[in-house]
Order: sequence, then structure tokens, then C-alpha cells
Amino acid sequence: MLNEFDIIRTCFDQPGLAAQPGDVVRQGIGDDCALLRVPPGKELAFSMDTLVEGVHFPAMAEPDDLGWRALAVNLSDLAAAGATPLVFTLGLTLPSAQEAWLQGFAGGLREAAGRYGCALVGGDLTRGPLTITIQVHGLVDEGKAISRAGARPGDSLYVSGSIGGAALGLQLLENDSDDFTAEEKAALLAAFWRPQPRVALGAAVAGLVTAGIDISDGLLADLAHICERSRCGAALRLDDVPFASTVPKHTREYYLQTGDDYELLLTVSGKRDKEFLAAAGACGVPVTRIGEITTGSGVDCLAGDGSKVIVTGRGYQHFHA
Amino acid sequence: MLNEFDIIRTCFDQPGLAAQPGDVVRQGIGDDCALLRVPPGKELAFSMDTLVEGVHFPAMAEPDDLGWRALAVNLSDLAAAGATPLVFTLGLTLPSAQEAWLQGFAGGLREAAGRYGCALVGGDLTRGPLTITIQVHGLVDEGKAISRAGARPGDSLYVSGSIGGAALGLQLLENDSDDFTAEEKAALLAAFWRPQPRVALGAAVAGLVTAGIDISDGLLADLAHICERSRCGAALRLDDVPFASTVPKHTREYYLQTGDDYELLLTVSGKRDKEFLAAAGACGVPVTRIGEITTGSGVDCLAGDGSKVIVTGRGYQHFHA
Repeated sequence: MLNEFDIIRTCFDQPGLAAQPGDVVRQGIGDDCALLRVPPGKELAFSMDTLVEGVHFPAMAEPDDLGWRALAVNLSDLAAAGATPLVFTLGLTLPSAQEAWLQGFAGGLREAAGRYGCALVGGDLTRGPLTITIQVHGLVDEGKAISRAGARPGDSLYVSGSIGGAALGLQLLENDSDDFTAEEKAALLAAFWRPQPRVALGAAVAGLVTAGIDISDGLLADLAHICERSRCGAALRLDDVPFASTVPKHTREYYLQTGDDYELLLTVSGKRDKEFLAAAGACGVPVTRIGEITTGSGVDCLAGDGSKVIVTGRGYQHFHA
Repeated sequence: MLNEFDIIRTCFDQPGLAAQPGDVVRQGIGDDCALLRVPPGKELAFSMDTLVEGVHFPAMAEPDDLGWRALAVNLSDLAAAGATPLVFTLGLTLPSAQEAWLQGFAGGLREAAGRYGCALVGGDLTRGPLTITIQVHGLVDEGKAISRAGARPGDSLYVSGSIGGAALGLQLLENDSDDFTAEEKAALLAAFWRPQPRVALGAAVAGLVTAGIDISDGLLADLAHICERSRCGAALRLDDVPFASTVPKHTREYYLQTGDDYELLLTVSGKRDKEFLAAAGACGVPVTRIGEITTGSGVDCLAGDGSKVIVTGRGYQHFHA
């Protein structure tokens, strides 16, 4: 059994995970505060997300998957702002200190930290119900951060990747199914446990798109956030939404309301459509035009013939009215 | 019953608590990321602390006390670095959304935010066991942050305020006592619930002291952290430690090992002693010289006659070896 200082030293303050001090990171793990110098011309973008066992992920999660997922879902917020990841802090609350679990968790964190260039600079380790809070910090050129507030009527609406795979993966975790091949199951579980935040895409299109958000609460709910903050409406063309190939067609409206995909939803002014598609292509990220921003308010879902489809539900909410 | 967006709007995104965008805070609550511009010549100092119900505070805490305490203990880390508070993020996990509790908690946060000039810029609200994670962010002149690592043999060792009151307050919460007057009890409970982080003192002596830390794990344990990181030892003169007047003399060694006081422990080179005392005096904060930094390693506790006193225990640890 390790004490908290041992845990920090042996699991977290390790090469490949902990930040090494330099010109930007002036102080990492080991003092009361971490210290950063933000380079001239840059803004610091930061975001905090909490994952609670039994709420955001099932009990008995593999620790390495959990480490990856905890950092990746936070990095998705940096992607949505168009910021390039820099450092993160970790508030880890856990019922007991099991070294194998901790090494596994730190290993998953290290994989994501290495992949996306985001090193650990501090945090807090406490005893209690398993809860993981991460704050990620990234850099973006001054005035170029993507926000939810800039969409304008006439803008094209794009989504990256595909929708619904992570929610199907979560369902598989809860109830195994004979509807999928072993290969499909592995892909769906990976979509849930190993989300790939669209960091390169976000950074490539910052200053080019008019608004953006990452899909964590569900496509419809997150599109509604853009509409609300941009004071506009949106027309979503259901037939154009790139659902994961394993989403059964008759259930697709349901997957407009499930979260966890961590794709980006982006709005683009018509005169920059080509530039946007070229930038996305250069990142190797598939993007699909799924509708447009409109005057008015709220999201209209449209069938192939242009008729409105009523979709009920409002995305994941922690506290229901 | 409120949903999470209602809670954020009605309790947290409110004047006196939420940051208003300006030259430094470019984006506060309401988007995927908050955005900061760090002024030229400044570094950003930040620190994260988690409070878990039943571990860091008793169940049935008054929500306003809890709001104050959650922010104040984090601000103490900025004080220890000599940084001036700027903004904070809040990861709040709670079992159910009770409006009266939430308004009380937000009220306590708002009091501390107003007192110390630290506004809310974002966070995450989730369902689960009551857990509060806060990250505070402050500014300090480049190269002037106080760290644990700069103490040198011969430096004077100072502590602010008094020691032991918060731990006595916590004991009173757990078991009422006839040993104190009603006035003393109120002061002890306030020491636990309403710590006063030494933000003005830290900022005033940044660049002047050689090392510093805030006392959260206990005076002895936190002094040992300075010794370890500064690769030196310390002589602590027990008779000079400013214990709270309510600490019984025969128990004082115990209170070297209790945490929660959130005072500052600072080391000062002999040639700057007067300057240090003048700076502390100008802040109105009492400071007491309690020993000196030595060669060697570890902390020696000395009685009035200079003989070594063996004190067992190592401060609060979440996971015991």
C-alpha cells in the first residue's frame, strides 16, 4: 500500500507524463502552484471536466481505458476552442491506493498525454468515491479561439467523424449483444473508452470557422447550445448525418441525443467552405455537411424531402427538471 | 428541481461571482473553454484542491461555510506562491440539486471570491457523491514566485498567525466540549470553516523570502516538505510556535501535526529579516520567528533548553503506508 507522496512519485511524476520545466512551464509537479509563461500573442484556453464512477463510466472500468478517456474528453474541449494542448492538472479521488490500478490509470493518461502533447503539472490526490477531475490548458492565437457564439444565418454546418458509436459502445458494456461481429464490438467499445479528440482539426480551423462545439451532450443538444449562444436557428438534414455504420437506421434519431462521441460541430461561412474542407482534409479528418444555420431559434430536423421531423429528448442532463 | 443549465445560470453565472470578460479574462462561463490573456511580465500560477464529504469536512456542513472553505483553501496555495488571485474553476459533484443548498454554497463562494478578488470562469457540474474540486489561478511577476525549494542554512523560519485552531474546531464539530467558552467555540469553528488565506502576505513577500509553503498537512509535515525540496534541515523551537490560545499546553506537539490552519511558513535570509518584518507588518499579518534552516536534513524540534524533543507522526496523509 502506497502513501500519497509515493503514489505521486512512482506513478505520476514520471517521464512521458509529467511536464519538464522549460520556457513555458516554469514549475510543474512538486510545489504549491504550477507556473506557466504564456508566449506573446497567445491566449491560454482551459477547461475542467469531472468523471464519476457509475455516472460517466461503469464500475470495473479498466484503469488504462479510464486514464485515456479522462484526459481525452477534456482535450476535446480544447479542440472545440481551436487550442493546442499544453498541460493538465489531475484531481483524483479514489477509495484505496492499489498500485496495479494506479499504474494502469497512469499508463492510459500517459498514452493520451503523449499522443496529444499535454503533460501533467500538478493536481490533488484524495481518498473518497472514485472521481476524476481534469483541467486541460492549451494555447491559441489571440482573438482566434473558436466559440459557440459566432454562427450566422447561411453558414454551413459540419460535423467531424461519425455519430453514435460511443453510445452503442456504452450499451454493449451494459448489455452484450449478438447484433454485432467481434470486430464491430471492439470498434464500438473503443469509441467509448478511447475517444480521439479532434485536436488537430480544431487548431487547423481556428480563425476560419464562425463557431464550434464538441459533441459531449449529444448532437442535437450541442447544436442547440450553438444556436442559443449565437442567437440563431439551425436546419439539420437527418439523411446527411454520418451515423456510425453500426447504428441501425430505425434508431438513428435516438443517437442524435446520446453523447460521448467527442466529434466537433463547426459552422462555416459560405465563402470559406472550400478553405475549410481543404484544412480538414490536410488533417486527415473526415467532415460532413449536415445542414445550415438559419434565422430564428432552435434546431429543425429535416427529412430527405425537406419535411420537419419531431425528435423528442434534449441530450444528457445530470439533473432533470 | 433545477437542471444543470438552470443551476449554472441562477446560482453561479451571477454578478459578484462570475467573471466579466475584459482585457485579461477574454471568455468566462458559457463556452467550451475559458480564455485568459496573461499580462506581459507576469506568470500564471495555478493549483487544484479537492474536498470530499466525510473526508475533508463532515456531512451536514452548512453550504455557505463549505463554499467559503472550498475556495479559501485553494487560495492559500496561491498565497504560498506569492501570486495574486485572478480566476477559478469549479468542479462540483453533488447527489441531488437542491436550490437552497446550491444558493447557500454559491453565497459562500461569492463571499470568498469578493474578499480575495477571484472570479468564477467555468467548471463542471455532475451528479455523484458530494465532492468539490477547485482550481485557482493567479498572477505573479516573472521569476518572483515563492517555491518550496529556495531555503538555505541560516535562514530564519517564520509562521503567520497561529497554529491549532482549525484542528480544535474540527474536533468540536465531531465532539462538543465543555472546555471552551461559547466565544472560544465560535472562534474555533470559524478557524475551521472560514480560513483566511494569507494572500496579501504572500504577494507582499514574493521575491523577498527564500522559500514558502502553506500549512495544510500540519506544520511539521509542511516544514519537512521545504527541507526535502530545499535539501536542508530545520530547527523548530517549540516554545516559540504561536499556538492558538485555546490549545492546551500539554497537547501542543499534537497540533504540530494537524492541518487545516492555512497559515504560511516562510524562510528569510538573515540580511532581509527587517525588510520581511516590515512587509508583513504593512499587511497587518502577525508573523513569528519559530526557528531556522540548518545544514543536514529533516526537522529537529527543540525544547526551551535546546534539547531535542521527539515528536511522532507525520501530518495528514490520505493513504497510509
